[in-house]
Amino acid sequence: MATPDPDAHLREETIESKEVFHGGLLEVRRDRIRLPDGGEATREFIVHPGAVMIVPLLDDDRLLMERQWRYPLARVMLEFPAGRLERGEAPLACAMRELGEETGYRAAQWGRAGVLHNAIAYSTEAIEVWFARGLTPGERHLDAGEFLDLHIATLAELDALCAGGSVTDAKTLVCQLWLQNWHAGRWDIAWQDGS
Amino acid sequence: MATPDPDAHLREETIESKEVFHGGLLEVRRDRIRLPDGGEATREFIVHPGAVMIVPLLDDDRLLMERQWRYPLARVMLEFPAGRLERGEAPLACAMRELGEETGYRAAQWGRAGVLHNAIAYSTEAIEVWFARGLTPGERHLDAGEFLDLHIATLAELDALCAGGSVTDAKTLVCQLWLQNWHAGRWDIAWQDGS
Repeated sequence: MATPDPDAHLREETIESKEVFHGGLLEVRRDRIRLPDGGEATREFIVHPGAVMIVPLLDDDRLLMERQWRYPLARVMLEFPAGRLERGEAPLACAMRELGEETGYRAAQWGRAGVLHNAIAYSTEAIEVWFARGLTPGERHLDAGEFLDLHIATLAELDALCAGGSVTDAKTLVCQLWLQNWHAGRWDIAWQDGS
Repeated sequence: MATPDPDAHLREETIESKEVFHGGLLEVRRDRIRLPDGGEATREFIVHPGAVMIVPLLDDDRLLMERQWRYPLARVMLEFPAGRLERGEAPLACAMRELGEETGYRAAQWGRAGVLHNAIAYSTEAIEVWFARGLTPGERHLDAGEFLDLHIATLAELDALCAGGSVTDAKTLVCQLWLQNWHAGRWDIAWQDGS
């Protein structure tokens, strides 16, 4: 016998799904949906392939970060390395690739912290958060049209920048949450070898 | 004499800006831009009016949260109350309005924690984070087509849900970062009266 759905009074069902915009980067769908009360509504959202972000821990506990121009906000942002999944790419493979391309570093060990959804009202995007340690430097290979500075921060510096409002990138703030709790021995990360 | 721009080697300049999609919810622009090396590229992004989120603290330190169906992810998410700014609306006014509409509660005191940018690669969205305390219950007034459950959580419950991967909403995770550090006396929030 099927278990009753405890979320039936919240659930929205798809009636019809339609792509309404397909750009170079963004793909937008507008779905006709059935509301929990039987009414109809539309939901408009971006279909995103998913992404990863990497928290690279140097051996002295400092953090390898990036400064990058973010065009929608017309400013340089301090953030952890991140990138979109390529078609069929596993998140860890993407994390290794992006860390290498953007910073030149390779990591001896990787640990998955968790996943975040950064725009739940209008995007399917999920970002997996991976910690990387045992770092060795190498040559970076930026994509065409990609310009970024590496920035090495101590934990205390990053904490002060988050508290003071200089770091506003949501995914980087979520990494700070993980960093704090992992360093305090409160939240656990399972490490695996890999380069 | 003008100060040299320390970010000139990262800065992207707009050549031409064009709206390429205007839906019921989403507005997409595609800009032709000048890269730091003089080359050209395009940037596609959502223009968003901005939003607020509210961390409502009950007098016993428990937290007033919401469970809501998030269609792009096809699931119920546990999150703090949030909402988009209406045209010309100040963030605090929006926070007061959204808290009242979605939960029925009014707050005697408000404190601005900070701001986050949740999709810096493809959206202009900024979300202001406001703490609210001195809460008194009342009647809620949901928008048409809006269905949500209130959920009261202890700090320890929220912490465990974030650590274990049950809470994945980025803005709620950022609130958890603020909650932890504010409760620990490390990060400061300036309170003001208001209802």
